[in-house]
Amino acid sequence: MSHSLSWNRKDLIDVEHLSREEIETIFSAATAFKQAMEADDKKQPYLNGRTVVNLFLEPSTRTRLAFEVAASRLSADTITVTGAASSLTKGETLRDTAQNMAALKADMIIMRHSASGAPHYLSKVVDIPVINAGDGSHAHPTQALLDAFTLLEKFGALDGKEITILGDILFSRVARSNIICLQKLGAKVTIAGPSTLVPKAFESMGATVCHDLQKALKNADAVMLLRIQHERQTSTHFPSLGEYTSMFGLNKERAQWLKPDAIIMHPGPINRGVEIDSELADSNRSVILEQVTNGIVVRMAILHLCYCHHKGIEIELPS
Amino acid sequence: MSHSLSWNRKDLIDVEHLSREEIETIFSAATAFKQAMEADDKKQPYLNGRTVVNLFLEPSTRTRLAFEVAASRLSADTITVTGAASSLTKGETLRDTAQNMAALKADMIIMRHSASGAPHYLSKVVDIPVINAGDGSHAHPTQALLDAFTLLEKFGALDGKEITILGDILFSRVARSNIICLQKLGAKVTIAGPSTLVPKAFESMGATVCHDLQKALKNADAVMLLRIQHERQTSTHFPSLGEYTSMFGLNKERAQWLKPDAIIMHPGPINRGVEIDSELADSNRSVILEQVTNGIVVRMAILHLCYCHHKGIEIELPS
Amino acid sequence: MSHSLSWNRKDLIDVEHLSREEIETIFSAATAFKQAMEADDKKQPYLNGRTVVNLFLEPSTRTRLAFEVAASRLSADTITVTGAASSLTKGETLRDTAQNMAALKADMIIMRHSASGAPHYLSKVVDIPVINAGDGSHAHPTQALLDAFTLLEKFGALDGKEITILGDILFSRVARSNIICLQKLGAKVTIAGPSTLVPKAFESMGATVCHDLQKALKNADAVMLLRIQHERQTSTHFPSLGEYTSMFGLNKERAQWLKPDAIIMHPGPINRGVEIDSELADSNRSVILEQVTNGIVVRMAILHLCYCHHKGIEIELPS
Repeated sequence: MSHSLSWNRKDLIDVEHLSREEIETIFSAATAFKQAMEADDKKQPYLNGRTVVNLFLEPSTRTRLAFEVAASRLSADTITVTGAASSLTKGETLRDTAQNMAALKADMIIMRHSASGAPHYLSKVVDIPVINAGDGSHAHPTQALLDAFTLLEKFGALDGKEITILGDILFSRVARSNIICLQKLGAKVTIAGPSTLVPKAFESMGATVCHDLQKALKNADAVMLLRIQHERQTSTHFPSLGEYTSMFGLNKERAQWLKPDAIIMHPGPINRGVEIDSELADSNRSVILEQVTNGIVVRMAILHLCYCHHKGIEIELPS
Repeated sequence: MSHSLSWNRKDLIDVEHLSREEIETIFSAATAFKQAMEADDKKQPYLNGRTVVNLFLEPSTRTRLAFEVAASRLSADTITVTGAASSLTKGETLRDTAQNMAALKADMIIMRHSASGAPHYLSKVVDIPVINAGDGSHAHPTQALLDAFTLLEKFGALDGKEITILGDILFSRVARSNIICLQKLGAKVTIAGPSTLVPKAFESMGATVCHDLQKALKNADAVMLLRIQHERQTSTHFPSLGEYTSMFGLNKERAQWLKPDAIIMHPGPINRGVEIDSELADSNRSVILEQVTNGIVVRMAILHLCYCHHKGIEIELPS
Repeated sequence: MSHSLSWNRKDLIDVEHLSREEIETIFSAATAFKQAMEADDKKQPYLNGRTVVNLFLEPSTRTRLAFEVAASRLSADTITVTGAASSLTKGETLRDTAQNMAALKADMIIMRHSASGAPHYLSKVVDIPVINAGDGSHAHPTQALLDAFTLLEKFGALDGKEITILGDILFSRVARSNIICLQKLGAKVTIAGPSTLVPKAFESMGATVCHDLQKALKNADAVMLLRIQHERQTSTHFPSLGEYTSMFGLNKERAQWLKPDAIIMHPGPINRGVEIDSELADSNRSVILEQVTNGIVVRMAILHLCYCHHKGIEIELPS
């Protein structure tokens, strides 16, 4: 199937530059990988003998695992480098680190970095594919794509659907990438939460800003919760956890404001009892675990497409 | 060979629930893997394309390496998550962590945890196999099974054999699992050491409690030493290392109390000069390194059997 | 090709004991691996099903990654153990650690250790191949071999070539191994830098000691820079970084003292602006990234040759 897919990028740095057609190409490939996975045919040969470097210069377990699994399901050898203080990078510039990875004849670099723009810079320095696994407060394109893929599985199409993103929007790369991605697919996005965390300035991105939770929920087809970062509590514009939960935490009572078939999403890890009530996280409204599963196949699709383009080979998919 | 093995468990949580027949099934499979290994045919195809997660939420190097090697010798892809403070588990419940692993479409979880009962809980939450790699002071079934396998290699059968376990029994999951496992196989178990570390209460498990070292050694067919935990020395019921060694350390003089063909075991890592004299550890009475080797094949057997049952496929073994 | 290679060592501990013919054998194998790599045939089957243990008991990212990549390009399963404080080694002697690795039926151990002589000791204790990945201030043979391989690619032969090693020679295992290796291949070696870091005693190794930078550079066919260790600055015989740079840092002005076709080498990671000017590091005089690439193929060659000898099998190479 899908042998006619076309893809013309070596890197995935942001959703901003992707056309709707490109996003749909990723989803076509992801669908093929998912169908194979469901037929218990998880491991595909497309990166056999290839070396994928996971360069995680900002702590991450969940996203790193998902990429490691995705790469190994494509039969790649994976090499993981973690920690800003690794001796690889100590005293070296980012460019040196990147060029060293290329000199090892790595075939692809997956990068997480605390500095916005680092993966973009990397993609200019090396000629192998670079995949952004989250950079500063800039972008987290694979998260946004797996979220949209999950929504599409539920709704068929997103045109005209209303999606509410709720929580700490201000510094969230997940929110930024989702706002962009969802709108490209035709959805209407509302961002909600306390005014200190959900500034009016985001309206320039096309989203509706709403500080009234009931209003933000009542027309939503899906509500996407963001993780509340405990470590940000010392910040002056951040309410206490208890205060946040009492005003914006999603509990069963407030979930009744949602439409009956509205779904609940969360990129994980969830803080049960903080941004979401524990029972609600486990209810059949929740698609949180489907997001995790889709995170594997969407990332497999991205690695595969970028690699095929880079090598100039035809895109094959599991049949 | 052994195509007629039958196994009906998806998990291995404890030796307590295993029948003698089940233990012997594990050993039949382990024997097949060991024979293949000795014929330099180490790598087997049975978990090819499968993902095994090593979830080590309590520090461990030795057991983790043994499981990583066992899984990779079965051709699995292994993913290792270490550290109680991993961002995977931060703020997440154990159940969330487990469900996330299942959502990644992992095929099996190997878990070490500082809390007794954690792997049991996990096995109820996910429908993939869960293998206990040591939980709190509860159980360490794979260690007990590899120890018994090693004893059987030496003695053919354990019925009526006398095994002395010597050292810090009180908090030892290794001791608990061994007491149970050895008795199931027909052996008589004596536990020995200072009374503060070897309480009378263990008699309820069927073991003989003995605080006289000479008496504990003289009829033993094997003496199983436990590692003395340096870090426990601050505890009030723990003697100083020097005091322990002078009273219960196994040295050459005391080893003469043993029967001429009695063997010495230790789960490692050994404290030379503390619980065992250095020369004795390297003597031909010692089977310490055989325990390490057997740790690989017994774990391969367990992973293989649980996986086959889980998938409903016939148990094949190397021929 | 090269089916007629002969190699009679199970271990690579030092360059000191290698004959020129043995060094050339390594390079023949490395050339075959490099040609295959350039033909995009990176992964070779020679260690398929084998377990290679990376025992890095002194911190390292760069060398460890290179060995991990080399082993996985030979299709080995790799197991990495890092950290002097790993529970594997805690309380255990080095010998216990080694014997445990052998008991896991590892096929090869790659070892970095802060103590000079540790890999040599290991090679006597276990009967599987041991590769020295750097021990104390003693030796770093794979670095010296990849450096010489890089020089040979540029110059065809090293007989009569003049190589200057510049920097902190005193405690450098890279310098020691390079002095020995380069002379075996017919080169003349000058060591240069401040007198506190480049003692006269090195003349007993056959090198010329020179504290005048211009003199050290003007006849050099290649200058090999060593990394200045920031952490050594507290030492009384170490100048400040600024002082070092002002007197011995290689900048564009000083590079004009070099012959027009002289090349610049560095084992990495480089301190831009300290031992080398940033532009110079990126100039076409620099072969720094070629050293990284060659580090893979030279290490593949060493692993392959030692393994073939150990198993008594014929040395096959990619054709």
